[in-house]
Formats: sequence, C-alpha cells, structure tokens
Amino acid sequence: MKTLKIVTLGGGSGYTPELIDGFIRRYDELPVSQFWLVDIAAGEEKLKIVGALAQRMVKKAGIPMTVHLTTDREAALRNADFVTTQLRVGQQEARIHDEAIPLKYGVLGQETTGAGGFMKAQRTIPVLLDLCRDMERLCPDAWLINFTNPAGIVTEAIEKYSRIKTLGICSGANSMMMDIAKVYDVRREDVYARVMGLNHLIFADQIAVKGHDVTAEFIEKLAQGNGQNQLKNIPDSGLPPAFIRALGLYPLSYLKYFYLRREMVAHSVKDSQTYGTRGEQTREIERQLFELYKNPQLESKPKELESRGGAYYSDTACSIISAIYNNRQEIHVVNTLNRGATPDLDENSVVETNAVIDRRGAHPLAYGRLPVKIRGLIQSVKAFEELTIEAAVTGDYSTALMALSVHPLMPSVDIAEKILNEYLVVNRPFLPQYPQ
Amino acid sequence: MKTLKIVTLGGGSGYTPELIDGFIRRYDELPVSQFWLVDIAAGEEKLKIVGALAQRMVKKAGIPMTVHLTTDREAALRNADFVTTQLRVGQQEARIHDEAIPLKYGVLGQETTGAGGFMKAQRTIPVLLDLCRDMERLCPDAWLINFTNPAGIVTEAIEKYSRIKTLGICSGANSMMMDIAKVYDVRREDVYARVMGLNHLIFADQIAVKGHDVTAEFIEKLAQGNGQNQLKNIPDSGLPPAFIRALGLYPLSYLKYFYLRREMVAHSVKDSQTYGTRGEQTREIERQLFELYKNPQLESKPKELESRGGAYYSDTACSIISAIYNNRQEIHVVNTLNRGATPDLDENSVVETNAVIDRRGAHPLAYGRLPVKIRGLIQSVKAFEELTIEAAVTGDYSTALMALSVHPLMPSVDIAEKILNEYLVVNRPFLPQYPQ
Amino acid sequence: MKTLKIVTLGGGSGYTPELIDGFIRRYDELPVSQFWLVDIAAGEEKLKIVGALAQRMVKKAGIPMTVHLTTDREAALRNADFVTTQLRVGQQEARIHDEAIPLKYGVLGQETTGAGGFMKAQRTIPVLLDLCRDMERLCPDAWLINFTNPAGIVTEAIEKYSRIKTLGICSGANSMMMDIAKVYDVRREDVYARVMGLNHLIFADQIAVKGHDVTAEFIEKLAQGNGQNQLKNIPDSGLPPAFIRALGLYPLSYLKYFYLRREMVAHSVKDSQTYGTRGEQTREIERQLFELYKNPQLESKPKELESRGGAYYSDTACSIISAIYNNRQEIHVVNTLNRGATPDLDENSVVETNAVIDRRGAHPLAYGRLPVKIRGLIQSVKAFEELTIEAAVTGDYSTALMALSVHPLMPSVDIAEKILNEYLVVNRPFLPQYPQ
Amino acid sequence: MKTLKIVTLGGGSGYTPELIDGFIRRYDELPVSQFWLVDIAAGEEKLKIVGALAQRMVKKAGIPMTVHLTTDREAALRNADFVTTQLRVGQQEARIHDEAIPLKYGVLGQETTGAGGFMKAQRTIPVLLDLCRDMERLCPDAWLINFTNPAGIVTEAIEKYSRIKTLGICSGANSMMMDIAKVYDVRREDVYARVMGLNHLIFADQIAVKGHDVTAEFIEKLAQGNGQNQLKNIPDSGLPPAFIRALGLYPLSYLKYFYLRREMVAHSVKDSQTYGTRGEQTREIERQLFELYKNPQLESKPKELESRGGAYYSDTACSIISAIYNNRQEIHVVNTLNRGATPDLDENSVVETNAVIDRRGAHPLAYGRLPVKIRGLIQSVKAFEELTIEAAVTGDYSTALMALSVHPLMPSVDIAEKILNEYLVVNRPFLPQYPQ
Repeated sequence: MKTLKIVTLGGGSGYTPELIDGFIRRYDELPVSQFWLVDIAAGEEKLKIVGALAQRMVKKAGIPMTVHLTTDREAALRNADFVTTQLRVGQQEARIHDEAIPLKYGVLGQETTGAGGFMKAQRTIPVLLDLCRDMERLCPDAWLINFTNPAGIVTEAIEKYSRIKTLGICSGANSMMMDIAKVYDVRREDVYARVMGLNHLIFADQIAVKGHDVTAEFIEKLAQGNGQNQLKNIPDSGLPPAFIRALGLYPLSYLKYFYLRREMVAHSVKDSQTYGTRGEQTREIERQLFELYKNPQLESKPKELESRGGAYYSDTACSIISAIYNNRQEIHVVNTLNRGATPDLDENSVVETNAVIDRRGAHPLAYGRLPVKIRGLIQSVKAFEELTIEAAVTGDYSTALMALSVHPLMPSVDIAEKILNEYLVVNRPFLPQYPQ
Repeated sequence: MKTLKIVTLGGGSGYTPELIDGFIRRYDELPVSQFWLVDIAAGEEKLKIVGALAQRMVKKAGIPMTVHLTTDREAALRNADFVTTQLRVGQQEARIHDEAIPLKYGVLGQETTGAGGFMKAQRTIPVLLDLCRDMERLCPDAWLINFTNPAGIVTEAIEKYSRIKTLGICSGANSMMMDIAKVYDVRREDVYARVMGLNHLIFADQIAVKGHDVTAEFIEKLAQGNGQNQLKNIPDSGLPPAFIRALGLYPLSYLKYFYLRREMVAHSVKDSQTYGTRGEQTREIERQLFELYKNPQLESKPKELESRGGAYYSDTACSIISAIYNNRQEIHVVNTLNRGATPDLDENSVVETNAVIDRRGAHPLAYGRLPVKIRGLIQSVKAFEELTIEAAVTGDYSTALMALSVHPLMPSVDIAEKILNEYLVVNRPFLPQYPQ
Repeated sequence: MKTLKIVTLGGGSGYTPELIDGFIRRYDELPVSQFWLVDIAAGEEKLKIVGALAQRMVKKAGIPMTVHLTTDREAALRNADFVTTQLRVGQQEARIHDEAIPLKYGVLGQETTGAGGFMKAQRTIPVLLDLCRDMERLCPDAWLINFTNPAGIVTEAIEKYSRIKTLGICSGANSMMMDIAKVYDVRREDVYARVMGLNHLIFADQIAVKGHDVTAEFIEKLAQGNGQNQLKNIPDSGLPPAFIRALGLYPLSYLKYFYLRREMVAHSVKDSQTYGTRGEQTREIERQLFELYKNPQLESKPKELESRGGAYYSDTACSIISAIYNNRQEIHVVNTLNRGATPDLDENSVVETNAVIDRRGAHPLAYGRLPVKIRGLIQSVKAFEELTIEAAVTGDYSTALMALSVHPLMPSVDIAEKILNEYLVVNRPFLPQYPQ
Repeated sequence: MKTLKIVTLGGGSGYTPELIDGFIRRYDELPVSQFWLVDIAAGEEKLKIVGALAQRMVKKAGIPMTVHLTTDREAALRNADFVTTQLRVGQQEARIHDEAIPLKYGVLGQETTGAGGFMKAQRTIPVLLDLCRDMERLCPDAWLINFTNPAGIVTEAIEKYSRIKTLGICSGANSMMMDIAKVYDVRREDVYARVMGLNHLIFADQIAVKGHDVTAEFIEKLAQGNGQNQLKNIPDSGLPPAFIRALGLYPLSYLKYFYLRREMVAHSVKDSQTYGTRGEQTREIERQLFELYKNPQLESKPKELESRGGAYYSDTACSIISAIYNNRQEIHVVNTLNRGATPDLDENSVVETNAVIDRRGAHPLAYGRLPVKIRGLIQSVKAFEELTIEAAVTGDYSTALMALSVHPLMPSVDIAEKILNEYLVVNRPFLPQYPQ
C-alpha cells in the first residue's frame, strides 16, 4: 500500500492539532508517512509550538509518521500527495479590519461572505494561485484540499486559473446533519441530507433518517422549535416559524445574515461594541490555545480547541481525503464544479453540494432546477463571487467596486465605495495585484 | 383599409386624454373608428368627465372616430382589435397603503417593485386574468396592450395563464433614449439603445447616435455629470461617478432604489412626512386634473397633464399599436417572453428588451449572456416576480411571504411577515383569491 | 425487517427463471415473501409451465417465499413493493414483423431502435401506461422496474405520463464492465465505467480498474484487438482501429448499427435469409427452453437459458432493487431523468447513465457536456425517441411518420412512409390509440 | 457621405459581373468609390478577363467608381470597408474530386455539406483565417462578408478564431421567399419568412404575405403541388405529401439530400455517369462564360450568367452591405452567432436565421426551441460542423475522421476512412495544416 505525503500550508495555525488528530485516528485507512507543516517566516514561532505538539501526539500514538516543520515550501511540496491549506493572509489583524470597517457603516463584515469575504478573497486568492503554480511544477498530480475561507470562492478561483485538482471543504453541511442526528437521536451516519447552494449558503431539500424521508416533519420541528419555547435539541435559526414553513427547506445557520439582515447588523454592532469583533475574540482564544500548546506534557489536542469549532473540519477533511485515497465512491458535501448539477448556475461555477468522491475526484449528483424560493439569492451571491474572483486576479478597482456593490448585504453603492477605499489602504501590503 | 376598434379598460383614468390625443395625431396610419372607454360602476363619474373631454377632442379633430363610454365590458370587448388597460384596482387609496405600510418599517414601498409592486400585483393580476377570460370569448384575436403596473409581472402572468396575445408597455426605455437625444442634441429617432432586464430594471449596454456607437462616451458623460457640478442636460442618477464607470452601462433611473437602498429609504420616509406618499400626491394632482377636464370649453389635453409623466406612455403605446397594425417590423422596447434572448433567464420569463414588432407580435433580439455586473440583481428580482405571480394566482400565504422575503429591498423576513399581514387586512376587498 | 411483495408482468416469459434465481440468491438481503407472476390469458399456458419451475426452484432453495401465478393483475398489484415488467405485446410474431418489414426495404429492423424499436414502442407504451394507472390506484408507492424494450423510451413515457416511480434497466453497461473485467482479469466489482447516452446508445468515457484510470490504455487495446488478429478477451466491435482511436470512447456494441449502417443492413438481410430474423430465431430458442422447463425434475434454471443473454438482466435488476430496498447509495447505470446531468439534452429527457441508487431512487451524477463526437448522434436519436413517445400516446399518423423519418438509420422519408403503412396494417390489434 | 472601398477576394470568379452589377445598381445608397478585385497568381488570367468586363460595366454606368485588378492582397486590403470572398481553393478540379470520390462509395459528395463540404472546408478555412490575420493588421474595422461555401462552417471558423466582424451569406432563404412570392403572385418584399437552422439546412416555420400568416396554407399547397400533377409555380421538393404535411415547415430544397438520401445518391450516381459531376458541369459553364466575357463589346452581365444561380447572391450581398452601411435595422437571413436565438444550439454556434442588420452588425431574433421534428438533424449536422472546423484548424487526422463519420449522410465509418484517405492524397497541395 502506497504511503502518503501530506503537506499543510499554514501549518502554524491553531487548528493543526485537530488535523493531526484526525490523521492519527485514521492511520489504518490512510497511511500517512510524512506530514509536512509549512508556514511563512512570520509564523515560524507558532509553527514551532504547534508542530512540537503535533510531534508529541504522533509519538504517543506510536505510528510511523514523521512530522516536518518548515518554511521551505518547495521542499515540502515535492512529490506531495495531498496539500491542505489553513492559512490566513494578514493574520487575525486583517480579519479584524475586514469586520470592523463595514460595521462602521452599518454593514455586516462576516468573513465568509459580504464585505469581509470579499476582502479576505482579495488577499487569499493570489497566494493560493501562487501555491498552485508551485504545485504544477513540484507535485502536479497532488490534490489541493482547500479549507481556507471563503472556501467556495477560493475553489472557483483555483478551478478557473489552475490545472491543479482541488476540492473545497466546509464543515457546514456536516454540522447540519449532526443537528438532524441530535433531533432524531441517531448517529450522524444514519442521516442523509441533500444540499445545494454556495459555500455558507446551502439549503437541504431532502432529509432522510435511515433512508426514510423526514423532510416535511423536520421542517415542522424547526418551525415549532423556534422562538421563546425553544425545544430541546432543535436548532434555533432565529427565523419566524411562518417563514420556515414557507421556505420548506433547512437552511444553514449562516443564512440568517441574509434573512435577518437588519437584525444581524444591529446585533453585530452591539456585539462588537461589547466584546470586540469576532476577529478580536478569535485572536484572544488563539492566544490562550497557544499557551496550552506550549506545555511539553500535552500529548493530545486540548478540549478547549473545540470552542474554535474545528472538529468537524478535521473530520470532514480526513474522511474526504480517505474517500479519494481509497476510491470509496462515498457521498460527501464539497465545493466543486457544478457541471450541470443545477442548470440555474453556470456549468463552470463552483457549488457546494453532494458529490460522489472517489480516486478521480468529486462527481456532483444532478440536482435539477433550484427552487425559485432560493434561486435568486444563490444566483445573486454567485455574481458577487465571480466579480470577487475577477477583482482578486486582476486587481481592477472597478471590478472590486462592482463586487462589493452587488452583494445582497450592501445597502448602497456609495457605502461600498467608502468601504473599498478604506480596505485598500489597510490591506496594501497584502494586495500586490492592485496598483500600489 | 380595415378600421379599428380600440377598447380601454380603466377608461376613467386621468391619462385618457393623452391616449386619445395620441390616436388622433396618428389617425392617418391608425384608422380608429371606435374608441371604447370602459370603467367599473365606482368609476363612472370620472369616466363621464374624461369621456366628455375625449369626445370634444375628437370632434375638434374632425375625424370619423366615435368615443363610447360604458360600464358594460362585454359589449365593449366584442370584436375589439386592441384592448389597453390603465386600471388601478382599489384606486389611489390602495396605492397609499401600498407605500405607507412598508415605510413604517423603513422599507421602500415603490409601486412597481418591492413591497408596493407585490401588493399591486396581488390586486391586479386576478382582474387582468378575468379580462383575458372575457377576451378569449369575445375577441380572441385581439391584442392586449398592457400599461398597468407592475407591467412586467402582469405581462408574465398573462403569458402564463392565458392564450391572449399581449405586450407589456413602459415608457422607461423611451425616456432613456429621450435623455440621450437631449445630451447629443439630436432627435429621439436618431438614438438607438439596446436594453435588457425586467420592467423598471433595465440597463442599456449599447448606445448609438445616428448608428455610431457612443456607449463609452455617454457613460463617461454620465459619470462626470453627476454630483455637485451637474452638467446641462446630463441626467443625474445620484450614483457615484466611480460606480457609474465601474458599471459601464446606462441604468434606468429606477435602479437607484436598488443601488442606493439606504439613502432612498431615508429620502422616502422624509418625503412622505413632508408631502405625503407619492400616492397621496398623485391623488391631489388627479383631483386638480379632473377639475380642468370638467371645463366644457377644454378641447385638448391640458398641459398640466404632463406633470403626471404620461406623455411617453401614450407615444409608446400608439407607436407599438401602429407597428402591429401596419406590420412595420420596427424595433421597440417591450415586455415580452424571453425565448432565449438571454440564456440567463428562463425562456418563459417576461423580459423588457428590444424586439421587432410586426403583425405577428414581438420578436425579441437575441442578447446573449447578461453582464455579470447586473445578472444577479435581475435574476433575483425575477425570482421575486415568479413568486409574486404564483401568490396572486393561488392566494397562498406562504408563497406570498416568500415573494416579499426574497425581494432585494426587504431587510428581513420578520419585517416581510409584518408587512404582509397588514397588507392582507387592508386589501381584503380586492383579494378574493386569498382565504377571507 | 419488512418483507417484500414483488410482481412481474409478463411472468410467463422464458426469462422468469433468471429472475427467480436472482431473488433466491439474494434472499438474505432482499426478503421477498411473495412473488407474483402475472400474464394475460393468451400467455397462461406458458405462465403455468415457467411458474411451476419457479415454484420448484423456490422449494429447493428452502426459503419462505410463495410464488403466485395469476392473470388477475389487480390482485397481484395490490400493495406491491416492486413491479417488474418483461412483457412483449404481440409476442414474438409481432417482433418478426418489426424486423422483416424494414428489411424488405433495406432498412435495419432492430427491436430496440430504428423502425423495430419505434413499432415496439407503439404497442408497449399504452400497455405500460395502463399498468401505471392501475399502480397509481393499487400500489402508488411501489417502484416500477422496467426491463421492457425499448427500455429508455418506455421509461421516458412513464416519467412523462405517470406519477409512478420508475427506473429503466438494461444489462448493456453491465456487460461492458464484464468485458473490461475480462481484459484485465479482475472481478466485475473492480471495474468502474462512467457511461452516458441513451438506452442501447451509450459510451464509456472514463474507465477505472481498482480506481486507476485505464481509459486510454483500454481504448488502445480495443483498437489493436479488432480485425483479423483478434486478441484474446478483447471484444470485437467490428469498428476500424483508426475510428476507435479517433472516438476515444468505449461504445456499447449496439453502436455498430449506427457506425456500420451499410454493412449491418447487408449482414441482417443475409442473416435473415439464412436463419430467419432474430425474432424467428428467438421464437425457436424459446420453444426449446419451454420444452426443458416442462421437465418436472428440473429445479434450477437450465444453462441453455444463457444463450438468451438474460443473466446480466437478472443480476442488474436484483442488485438495483436491493440498492433501493437497503438504501445502499450504490452507483448503477440506469435509465432515469437527466435533470441536467448533461446540459446537451433536455432536463426531462431520460438518459442512461451512472446514478446513485438509494431508497429515494436514482440520482444521476453530473456528467457535463457530451463530447462533440457523440453529441449529434445522441441528440438525433433523442428527437426520434420524443416523437416515438408522442406518437404512441396520441396515435397521430403524422407524428409517427416524423418519428420514423428522423431516425438516423432511415434512408428516406419515402421508405419511412411505406414501412409505417405496412406496420399499421399488421399491428392493428395492438394499436387502440391509432384510428382503426 | 463617406465613400467606400470594397475588396473582393477571388475576384477572377465568373460571379464577379453579378456583384459589380449589384453595386452599380445601388450606387445611390452605397457610394463605392473603389472596387478591388484580388486573385492569386494562378487566377490572374481570368481576373484580367472578368476585371476588364467589370471596368466596361462601370464605365457604361457613368459612375465615379474605379475598378482595381491586383494580385497584391495587402495593397487591396489596406483601409478596406468591406471585404467579400468568392474564392475556390483548388479551383473546379478540387470540387470534382470532392464529389467524385464519395460517389465511388455510393456517398453523396455535395459541396456544401457531407463529404464534399467537409473537404472544401479543409482547404478553405486556413485561407480565410489567413485573410483574417491580414485584415486584423490592415483594416481591422472592415466587415468580412463571406459567400464562400460551406458558408456556415466558414463563418463559424472566423467567429471562433478571429476578431474580424463577419457575416455569412447565402441566397437560400431569399430564393425560398422568391418561390413564395411566385405562388402568391406578389413582390418579394411582400413576403416574410422566419427561418432557422444551419446553412443549407434551414426551415421556414412562419410565412407571412403582406403581414398575414399563410404558413399552414402554403404548406398545404406544397403538399398538393408535389408529385405527378405538379401545379404551376409550386416548388417541387420531391418529398411525399404526407411527409410535407407531417413536417409542417417549408424546408430549403437542399433538405432533400437528407430526407431522400437513398434516392439522391442513386440520382447523383446516374447523373454523374451521364453528365459528369456537378463540378464538371460547372467547369464547362464557366468556360463558356469566360468566352463571352472576353468580348470587348460586352458591357453588362450576360444573361447566360443566370444559369449559375448567382443573381440572388449578389442581391443578398449588396442589400446586406447597404443595411450595414446605412444602419437600416432591416431584417435579413444571415449566418451569424446564435447567442441564444435557439437554446437548442450552443450560444457560440453559427446559425442561419433572421437577424436585424444595422451598422453594428447582425442581431438575430430570438427563435426559442427548435421543433423536435427538425432538432435532431440540425444538432447532428452542427456536431459535424464543429468537428470539421476543428480538423481544418488543427489538421488532426482523428478529428477529420470523426467529422466525416458523424455526418448523417455517411453510411459507415469504414467508408468514411476510405474517403478521407483518398481525399488527403489528392488535396495534399492545399492542406498545409495536415502532416505532409
């Protein structure tokens, strides 16, 4: 059995113990012999801390896997089998700006869509495409498993501007199925949901528990579960029951940013005034995590890591890598080319949907027409995504302005212009593609 | 030459003198021998006033056209050649509610799109489909030329639920070309603009003056013309110059409701507090107009009518009716079935675009893909339109709630629910299709 | 575990021992408690012979399955879980006409496409739709697993004109994968081929052995294997090596009817002069089989049955029924709605392609654009199929004539007319939908 | 008013007097000041003969147009406004091979489709793309009006591989409308037919005389007019009346090659045995024409030219050039990009259909779905066209073999291979793109 070389870009991330834990637990099916953690010079200190923990974890597991820590990306990539990314260009500081600048104008600055997602994409896509150039040279047959947000946008950029095989991964659908499993008190494996949409913008329209359709029943539970008399185990979307019934689909929780735009902005403004932005909160959590990681007695991922919400990511990523490696023909929800899965989006758009995963990659299941109830929103965000990618690749100001302007969460093009101008100033070091 | 019988539903409208004036001026090419003005009992008084004026106008013109005033729709429709509609179910009172209720929640209540357009469609579509039933019986080969707003939505409803030949008419594109003509100091006939979109949501992407492309040049004029140093004759869209350049298209002025959502809501709220809603203003203008109409000395349309903005409508309508009647193969901008003109919308969607008009109807010119800059917005409003039509036909509460919820101007589904509930109460008399 | 009631229409067919054998072997996973064989009065004698054999086979297997023989379709259908069809309206006599009439004019009369397929569809579709009407009443949740040729056309007719859940089954793709397995000396389960097309008109464009892509290599083997020096185990398509290389896909063997039209007609004419038509040969084989079946000592399917080529059918059918029943999410090649799997065919067309099968049915994998090399042929046969279905449902002469005329194997519309006229005369008893 | 420079490639063609005659007659609306006839060295003698006639014709007309004869293509192209092509790479000799080789195998060798069209495209496309390269340099804003057959294929090649503005022109639709005019005894201008399809593969589905729909009536006349009792003025398609009624569309006469494949092959074989191929007949007609042209007394196009069928071409071409130059927004049938005009063909396919012609080019009218009766044939020939273009550009043997193999008139891939091999030998001098 061929052993595997896995390379993780942004290896100094606080998530790394999750990932290494996942590979250790799956060693029998995924014989990883080399695990390379790569980071840039600025991240070397964190790389050493988290890398040492990773090495202790592997040692404790007693498996023949070597963990390499390096800032030499070329050496790492050579003959890699799978490359994963969890990098954050500009660190948490950049994220804080991503969120704070829009909030000043009463606009949501969530990092995966809207203004924040736009800005993160501008910093991230050039770095990822540069990675792809290296991969085309050093490991042209390797898979690039992309966790980096905005995951759908980044995946589409790679599909459009590179020959590297890639899949975009998000734990969203997985967490939806976990929630369903909780409601029905069954295992996650007993739940199947068909979802369609874009990353962080997905809806389940068919829900089965042990193969039996429970869609209508589950939607009714959702509707009844919302509001003051929150029922046990029923996820609270914050959406009015009448709306949930009218929708008739199970939306990912991120959808509340769109369906409750006004309320979420108000909430975010208040929240950031009280606790700082989500980026500031995350920075503090990460600081605490790294304090734990430094402890040379620690040989497993600390349970505090769970508050970062990364457990599902690791599970999702490892199981998909295993499905590829073992040619499993299992169904997973991934970000991949549409290819007609829904005729309401371009064939070359990246969608997030159920796909059969095997050694040759992802084969999305034909979905058919989008329900009209969600079609406009999905098409509208897809237009934003296309413009965002084009702006990230060309550094064209007008394209960037259009991208921000057409996002459904943007209340005016005047504000879009102001946000863009502030963004370009604070992000200058990370935007070589824009006129300096 | 066959003479024509023309029937106007909502004949008691203040616009009628415009329309009759148009037919009088075109009598040589459009030999209308019978002009029937039809209204409901409640509108009979206004019908008599405006009808008498129409009769005086015809008499003065010295043409062999008879003007009939009636509340007997069947008699009017029998063997009609063209039927036009300018009716307003629920009168100006309903419009005032359409606008005021959303404004209470800080939501735009414009009558042609958003909440106001939704509500007007709920009242209007059943009446128009009922008219179509009568036409199928009494004048199955007649054309229904629809002016009634929301014109695109109403036209799509007729296309979907009736066999009657129809075209939806709006003066928007015509007024855009008038504006271009003013900038270049040429006649309207020297200007050609290719537009695409939905009613009140169109963009010109190719602009020619005397056959020469001036698109880029005109856009730059628009950009420079905006703002404080408003240039002579350049229409002021209120949009930032950088945005106009980035867009690179000439948007209909209604687009400011979408591109300057926040500012326009603020403006509408302030405006309605100062002057009342647009509906209240219109009611007052109309009251004054009818005072003028009553004057038995008046034998032509009064110039005060122009403040209602109806001149273009009449011109647009008469020239399109003439193009059909005379089999002209002229190009006009109309609301008609897409049929692939743009592959980014369903073939059976109604779009507003350039079409060749001849005796067989409208033949839209193939446009190709929508620019991504405007694609999402158009697709998103089209989804709203489809749901609005479905709600109007079925009277289904959930569909109505979804329609309102997915409109880009709606800031939250919670507010959508509140607006809908208030709407349904005040509109009860006009909504037989909804559960009473 | 719920036990199953399975009903087979055309139960008196010579294939029945294959099917019963398949269910006996899979009893552990598919607990069939009742197996109903249904036939019409005219087929009762054969039903008794083959039914008695089926009962002996079950008895020998020692499983608690009852085999019911009946001509009472209603009783059989009530509460059925799966209904399969292997009926032949008009028996082998009709098939003999299907083939002989076109051959008189030098036109291929193959029973699954071309003139023969057209004629069989005209007789079969009304019977199948009538069955669906009964199922909608008696077992609305049952699956109709359709083996009856032309399987793709019949499945599309059911999808278009009935609410019954259905899948069309053919052993073609399975036999292609068996052939690949033979070439690589691996088990069938180690082979995966992605196919796309219509029933009896499929092409494999991705071939994997144990998850490794061998497409190009296998095509080269095919090319080299053809011709005089026929290599061991390499299927001989009769196609020139240069053409196979140019095609670059693995075509089902039926494709030779299209790619070698002239040669195949010549061969069929000669063959029918020597041995009679395929229908005549089959009738003789079937006569011999029933002689064997009559032997009360026979308790298993006789090996002579294999010459009918039905083994794969039974395997394919049983494994698909098991995948549905056990919610397996396995990939099978079936005839099912396209739903965008390839944008080059209508979303509501039935295609034959790889689909995930689970309790909710078939979910085709998105395939993307058809290679231009095969696109025209597939689209062209699909047009024939649509017209064939419309003719079968309406009994409209002109539609029937167009269907025959547009088939790629038809050399002239004059001949199409002659064939149609002869067909309608000899098939009169089976064509209630046509004017009598 | 800007005067025009027109350049005709293949100026030595026997058609030139038609073209010059057309421009002379339209001088008032199309002020051509320079007319350049260009030919290659091998054609210089014919260029001189026909050029001298052209000069005499202009002189007689007394208009200020200069006629230039040259083999210097660069000089001719510099600052041209319109470039037309009527070249024939390989002369009539090549055409004779195009036809004779397939006929040996009982395959139709018509020069505009099937094997003959394929071969002509292989010779012609490289020459035309080379011309486009020159135009991009010397007259980038000029229009290329392409008459050269296969006109649809050549136009698609130019659209795909060049930036030059182009329209493909054929007299087919025009001659259909002339035939309709004859039947109704009206002027050509009183007839309007909507057609759709590919070059030499078009169908009229809406026929109007003076704006009144006569489609069904005209089809019935066609049906009745066929056969023994050929009615006066009714075009005889040779198609059986039942088929014409079933089709319900008016097919271009070339369609008989497809609908009467077997009969037409037999007829062509017999015809070529009696009179030589069409190419041989044409060569003889052309020889006789040039004898006439040599006469220095001749100052107008001789009436014998009409037997070449070129009159419509000249009319079609001149009126389209005038529509562009004068920005007429007239409707003409041209070969142009589909752009969604019918969703059943790719947006970037060239179709032959009605389009509005103005200074900016051709704007096809949205047609909607193709009738299923003709859809398969059109799609199937389009696949042939795409492969033919790809082969012509790449010189790839396999692509060439596939192109020939998928054509509906090809009876077997074995024969396709034989024809291709013979073609490549005799055409070697004209196929630089193929391995020599």
